Amino acid sequence: MSARARPSIHAVVLAGGAGTRFWPLSRRARPKPLLRVGSGSTLLGATFDRARRFADEDRLWLVCGAEHSRAVRKESGLRPARVLVEPQMRNTAAAVTLAAARILREDPDGVMAILPADHIVPDTRAFATAIRRGAAAAEATRGLVTLGVRPTRAETGYGYIRLGKPLGSAHPGLHHVTRFVEKPDRARARRYWRSGRYLWNAGVFVWRADVILEEALAHAPEVASELAQLRGVPRPRLSAAIERAYDRIASLPIDQAVLERSDRVRCLPVDFHWSDVGSWGSLAEEVGVTANVTKIIEGEAWLRDARGNLVYGGDRPVALVGVSGLAVVDAGDALLIADLEHSSEVREVVAALTKKGRGELL
Amino acid sequence: MSARARPSIHAVVLAGGAGTRFWPLSRRARPKPLLRVGSGSTLLGATFDRARRFADEDRLWLVCGAEHSRAVRKESGLRPARVLVEPQMRNTAAAVTLAAARILREDPDGVMAILPADHIVPDTRAFATAIRRGAAAAEATRGLVTLGVRPTRAETGYGYIRLGKPLGSAHPGLHHVTRFVEKPDRARARRYWRSGRYLWNAGVFVWRADVILEEALAHAPEVASELAQLRGVPRPRLSAAIERAYDRIASLPIDQAVLERSDRVRCLPVDFHWSDVGSWGSLAEEVGVTANVTKIIEGEAWLRDARGNLVYGGDRPVALVGVSGLAVVDAGDALLIADLEHSSEVREVVAALTKKGRGELL
Repeated sequence: MSARARPSIHAVVLAGGAGTRFWPLSRRARPKPLLRVGSGSTLLGATFDRARRFADEDRLWLVCGAEHSRAVRKESGLRPARVLVEPQMRNTAAAVTLAAARILREDPDGVMAILPADHIVPDTRAFATAIRRGAAAAEATRGLVTLGVRPTRAETGYGYIRLGKPLGSAHPGLHHVTRFVEKPDRARARRYWRSGRYLWNAGVFVWRADVILEEALAHAPEVASELAQLRGVPRPRLSAAIERAYDRIASLPIDQAVLERSDRVRCLPVDFHWSDVGSWGSLAEEVGVTANVTKIIEGEAWLRDARGNLVYGGDRPVALVGVSGLAVVDAGDALLIADLEHSSEVREVVAALTKKGRGELL
Repeated sequence: MSARARPSIHAVVLAGGAGTRFWPLSRRARPKPLLRVGSGSTLLGATFDRARRFADEDRLWLVCGAEHSRAVRKESGLRPARVLVEPQMRNTAAAVTLAAARILREDPDGVMAILPADHIVPDTRAFATAIRRGAAAAEATRGLVTLGVRPTRAETGYGYIRLGKPLGSAHPGLHHVTRFVEKPDRARARRYWRSGRYLWNAGVFVWRADVILEEALAHAPEVASELAQLRGVPRPRLSAAIERAYDRIASLPIDQAVLERSDRVRCLPVDFHWSDVGSWGSLAEEVGVTANVTKIIEGEAWLRDARGNLVYGGDRPVALVGVSGLAVVDAGDALLIADLEHSSEVREVVAALTKKGRGELL
């Protein structure tokens, strides 16, 4: 088989959504995918680094909201034709269907991998291998392939996939899916973890564009029927057509709209390290903060007897004296000092600011 | 006795010195006496509030360094003639002797009370009563009266006065002083506290201006002989004369230069609450921070599950999430996050900044 006979996969990076869990850095003007996580790289940039391992440059796609399209596109390095701008936030079912319709215009046999733009997967090689295996399985079975990450702890912050039977020796590793489950409570998370039959739903999917569109039309016409028509709209009229469609379609996650309803869902278990980086606390872990190590991602910090902190400084230096386990974030117009173990409560601060009409800080 | 026969006391507020313990708020440009400690009031302002309880407006004096004279004078509300500007920092022996020489020019029988500008004494009435009793004793005995604060704990951060015998019924409460001792180690501090014979040296003194000048000339001529001559210098030439004198005199604390050498020292024990506010930690205690209570002295703070913190915000809001026992200080061009129990280590940060030539932050 030549490279031509087996074209590369389309990588669809989803950078919609705002996210307030990384307030005051992630906010309306600077969404979570633009969060810097190390030496110069953002979550979005790292996602494209992963995508470029399995997708050619002209098969990279970005779906993002109108509000951040400039900043997000700049960070992606893509040319405008590869960026699908959503006029309104309509959750992942719309984003995926939009991308499928767009890809089908130029590649009727296209296989697409869906990559959330705000996750961390350090092992890009293992990730690319899994996507390629997923793509082969998606082609061979015309299935909807979801990557399932083997849990390393009884996490309550993720959704789970319950593994069904293996598909058999023709499709090594591939499993049926019994069901998708939402974030469990602590006791159930512990049972899931012990059982070995539940994997984390990483929101990473691989499928043929025509198959996902077909399934979306079958199970979520309230999202897909408008968007499917975009296949026939000529380029100059496309963005107006998207705008009209988004005015009318439903807002649903792809899991709920299609995957939980389709019988073509398959799971490919993987065991690379993956995180959806849901809080300053989990980000700290990902960037290497430990009980003894403070990480300064941005800005200038002076440490004295300070351990295990995560620092996003601003234009002014910050001194940490005798403190540990903190997120210290200087966004210029707002500061956050949060215990890393309680950092998910940042959302309550955002809620309070919203309630008090402090939109300039959101 | 009419009010005329018993004139009020001269209050001499010492606001020299820079102090780095409250970095990044107290620094070269904004010394510790200008630190805000509550509803609008600074340490210096509160000191003058105390002084005005026992001294008439034309008997209030301020001794301060040239660097902060504008800001400090403004905060004091005094007219320029009552502000003695030290051209260089020469410690308290010089400041006291300068004030004595100045006061003697217009009040040869003047009694002066020395008040450091950066202490906290909430009970201004008890303080004024003690000063008045001290003044009466200073007049009657021609002694150097030091206020000695009864310890409430085995403090290692203060100097101590060892009480000698009482002077007797003619001078109720007044004691001889056996000796002055520098900051003790923990074991000695504990012995001092248990013994009941050691009082904290609050740096608050009362004496006749002519007596302190006499004693300074006798025991510290390296400080006093130049300054004593200022008595005869006409007003227009005074500041140039001070400048010349300060070029030549020694830099010594009054305790060491005079009190430890004189046999005219007396102690008046007092038991009001007093603190020299030596760190963010002790400041937090003074302004009412407890395990459960966060105090926001300046700026805007959003709290979520945050207890026992001290906040000096700046122009931007600060959010505290799940943190306790912190000093959070936003000085605009520098931030400090310090554990209140380790806040004396702020000095090491200042030392490090100095070493690295970051003068703009000092």
